[in-house]
Amino acid sequence: MLDETPVAGGGLLHRRTLLRAGLGLGGAMGAGAAFGQSLATPPSMRVPGAGFSAYGQPAQWRGDIVREYADVQTPPIAGASRTPLHRLEGTITPNGLHFERHHNGVPNIDPAQHRLVIHGMVRQPLSFDLDALHRYPMVTHNRFIECGGNSGGLSRPEPAQATAGSIHGLLSCAEWTGVPLAILLEEAGLDPEAHWLIAEGADGAGMSRSVPVAKAMDDAVIALYQNGEPIRPEQGFPMRLLLPGFEGNANVKWLHRLKAVAAPVHTRDETSKYTDLMADGRARQFVLQYGAKSVILKPSFGLSMRGPGLYEISGLAWSGAGRVAKVEISADGGQSWAEAALGDPVLPKALTRFRLPWRWDGAPAVLMSRATDEAGNTQPARAEWMAQFAPGQFYHCNVIQCWAVDANGEVSNVYV
Amino acid sequence: MLDETPVAGGGLLHRRTLLRAGLGLGGAMGAGAAFGQSLATPPSMRVPGAGFSAYGQPAQWRGDIVREYADVQTPPIAGASRTPLHRLEGTITPNGLHFERHHNGVPNIDPAQHRLVIHGMVRQPLSFDLDALHRYPMVTHNRFIECGGNSGGLSRPEPAQATAGSIHGLLSCAEWTGVPLAILLEEAGLDPEAHWLIAEGADGAGMSRSVPVAKAMDDAVIALYQNGEPIRPEQGFPMRLLLPGFEGNANVKWLHRLKAVAAPVHTRDETSKYTDLMADGRARQFVLQYGAKSVILKPSFGLSMRGPGLYEISGLAWSGAGRVAKVEISADGGQSWAEAALGDPVLPKALTRFRLPWRWDGAPAVLMSRATDEAGNTQPARAEWMAQFAPGQFYHCNVIQCWAVDANGEVSNVYV
Repeated sequence: MLDETPVAGGGLLHRRTLLRAGLGLGGAMGAGAAFGQSLATPPSMRVPGAGFSAYGQPAQWRGDIVREYADVQTPPIAGASRTPLHRLEGTITPNGLHFERHHNGVPNIDPAQHRLVIHGMVRQPLSFDLDALHRYPMVTHNRFIECGGNSGGLSRPEPAQATAGSIHGLLSCAEWTGVPLAILLEEAGLDPEAHWLIAEGADGAGMSRSVPVAKAMDDAVIALYQNGEPIRPEQGFPMRLLLPGFEGNANVKWLHRLKAVAAPVHTRDETSKYTDLMADGRARQFVLQYGAKSVILKPSFGLSMRGPGLYEISGLAWSGAGRVAKVEISADGGQSWAEAALGDPVLPKALTRFRLPWRWDGAPAVLMSRATDEAGNTQPARAEWMAQFAPGQFYHCNVIQCWAVDANGEVSNVYV
Repeated sequence: MLDETPVAGGGLLHRRTLLRAGLGLGGAMGAGAAFGQSLATPPSMRVPGAGFSAYGQPAQWRGDIVREYADVQTPPIAGASRTPLHRLEGTITPNGLHFERHHNGVPNIDPAQHRLVIHGMVRQPLSFDLDALHRYPMVTHNRFIECGGNSGGLSRPEPAQATAGSIHGLLSCAEWTGVPLAILLEEAGLDPEAHWLIAEGADGAGMSRSVPVAKAMDDAVIALYQNGEPIRPEQGFPMRLLLPGFEGNANVKWLHRLKAVAAPVHTRDETSKYTDLMADGRARQFVLQYGAKSVILKPSFGLSMRGPGLYEISGLAWSGAGRVAKVEISADGGQSWAEAALGDPVLPKALTRFRLPWRWDGAPAVLMSRATDEAGNTQPARAEWMAQFAPGQFYHCNVIQCWAVDANGEVSNVYV
C-alpha cells in the first residue's frame, strides 16, 4: 500500500506517499478496555452549551497561542510582536496573531477624519476619504508581509535555542483587499520625472519610506480589508500601503500621504535601519524585494518528537519575486535532498505550505528546508549568506534554518 | 482611456474596465482650501500610540461589524448567528465572524480528553486523540460552509427588507487544515457493505448526520485548524468534519464518533430538518451538495448609493459542485446580462469574489447576479425554484437575489 522507498537519506519518503498506521504510525489506538472508554458519552454531551457571541474568540484551551513581545510600557513604544508560526497550520495568519512592528505604538485613528493625500509631482493633487476609496475597483489577494529584520537572529555567532515563531515570526500572511494604487496615481497624473513616492504613516513616528513608482504602478494596493474584515489597528487601520513581496515597513501602515518625488529621500526609517552593511564597508540600501525563503515548523524547537515512526514534516515557504517553485528537504544535514509537496494552488507572494512524509528511525538527524522561487532564486546556506556582510548585519536574512533532532526526539537550532 | 461602451443594459461596463475619476467618479477631492486641511498633521501623529497585544481585536470604530443573532438565554440554545457579509470584503470570513448554527449551544471540550472514534462496520475500530491526529498528513484548502436553511427567507411571500448578511449570512469561508478522512478510514478498514457513516458531535444535542462513504473517501477532512489557528469553539473545537460543498450541519462539529453502517439511519437532525417537502407531497432527503449560487453585496439593502456616477458592483459566488465558471450581472431586472470579473484564482468549493464596473445614471434599476458552476449548474429564478416545492419549504434555497435601487440610491429587496 505504501511505497516506503526512501527518496533521500535519513528516511525521507516520496511527497505523494500517504501515511498508514499499519505501517508503524502508532498514533491510533485499537479496540480494548481503553478503547471502550473512548466510546463513553463525553461530559460535554450531558449539559447544554454556551450561547451565541457577536464576535468570537479562540478556545480557552488555546489561550497560550499568542504573539510574543517584550512588554514596553513607556512611550515611545517601538519594537515588534511575533506570530507563533510553530503553533499554527495552513498559510493564513488569523488577524489576532498577525505580527506587529511599531515605531511609536498603534495610533487610534477616527476613520471619518482620515484622508489619503496624493501630492507632490502630480498634475492634480488628490485627497480621498474612506467613502471615496470604496467606490473604486478593488482587488483581493493573499500576500505575506515580512519585517526586514526577520530571522536576523540566525546571524548571531551561536544558534539561539528558541521557537520558530521567536526566530522567524516577523512574518504573516493574510487575504488583503483594497484599491490598486496605479488607478489613483493615474488619476493624479504623475510627472514623468517622478520616479519615487514618499509614503508616510499617521502614527506618532511619522514612519516614512521611499517607494519606487515602478512598484506602485505594478501590484501595490491601498489595503482596506484583512482576511475579509476592516484592517486591524496594529496593521494600519483604516488603511495601509501593501507592496507585495517588499520588506515589511515599506508597507506603510496608517497611510495618510503619498508624495511624488524625483528620487528617494533617505528618510530616518530607511537609513537608520533596514540598510545592509556589506563586508567591504559600503551600505546597500533599498533592499526591498525578498528572496526565496522557507522554514520547517514541524518538527521545530519546542515541538519534540514522540518516538521513532512516521511523521509529516511541514513548514512554510515564500518569495518576494513571485511563486515558490520548489522546496527541498534534507534529513541528513544537507547531504541529500527530497522535494516536498506544495499546497494547491501555489500563490505568488503568499505563504506556501510544504509537506513531506518522514520515517524517523530514532537516530539523531538534522532537518533543513531550501526554497527555490519561479525566478530561480535559491535560499542560501548561512555561511554563504554571512560572507557578504560586515559583522553584525542581520537584515534581510533568508538563510537555511537547520533543526537537529536528538535520539530523545528533542529539537534544537543548529548551524551546519 | 476608459472604454465606456456598455456591455449590457442599465450602464454595465466591461469587466476589464478600470474606473477613472476624471470620468465622473467624483470620489476624490482636488486642490483647494479643504484639500489643504487634508495635508495638515493628523492628531494621531502628535501622540504616542498604544502598545503590543497578545491577541489583537478589531478597531473600536468597527465594533458594529458583528454576527447577528436572536439572544437566547435559556437552554437548549438552538439557533444561528449570521455573518455580516455586506460589511466584509474579499472571500475569507475572519474567525470571529464565521456564522454559527447550534442545536444545543457551544460545548466546552477539554482537548486532552477528546477522542475521535471510528467504529461499526470496520475491520479495526480506532480511537484517535489530538496528538495522534497531528502525526498524520494534512491538507489545507479554502472551503465555504453554508447552512441548509440559508437564504430561505427568499421563499416567503413578501421580500424581507433586510441586509444581505441577514438574508444570506448563514454562509462563511475559511482556510481549513486537517487530516483527510480517507486515510483514517483506510486504516480502520471499511467493510465493503458500509456505504454510510453516522457522524456524531459531542455537543448537548448529540447532533448526528448520515454521510455517504463516497464523500468521506473523496475530499472529506477532519478539520483541526481554521484560518491558520486551532478551530474555534463555535466551529467545533477541537475538531469538526469538513465535507466540502455539502450543507452546513453535515459538517458535524465537535466530532467524536464516526460509525460505519450499511444505510442512512435517518437521525433526528436529518428528518426533522434539512428535508425538502416537494410540491407533490413527497420529501426529498439528503440534499447534501449545494448548487450554484451568488449574491450582490455592494450595493445591497442598507448600503445606499451616493448619487449617479461610476461604482463597482461586487459580491460572492459559490457552488458545492466545484468552481464557479461565471457570474452574470443584470442592471435592468434580467433583460440583459454582462459577465463579471472573478477573483484570481477561482478555488473549488470556496467563495469567489466577483466585480463589475457600473455607471449608474441615477434612474431606478434592478440588480441581479446569476452564477454558473463548472458542472453547468445555473442559479434559478425564484419562481422556477419555488414551483418545485410545497408551500413553506425553504431549505437549500439558491434563487437569484434581486436588489432594486431607487432614484434616491436606496436599495431594497425585491422579487422580479
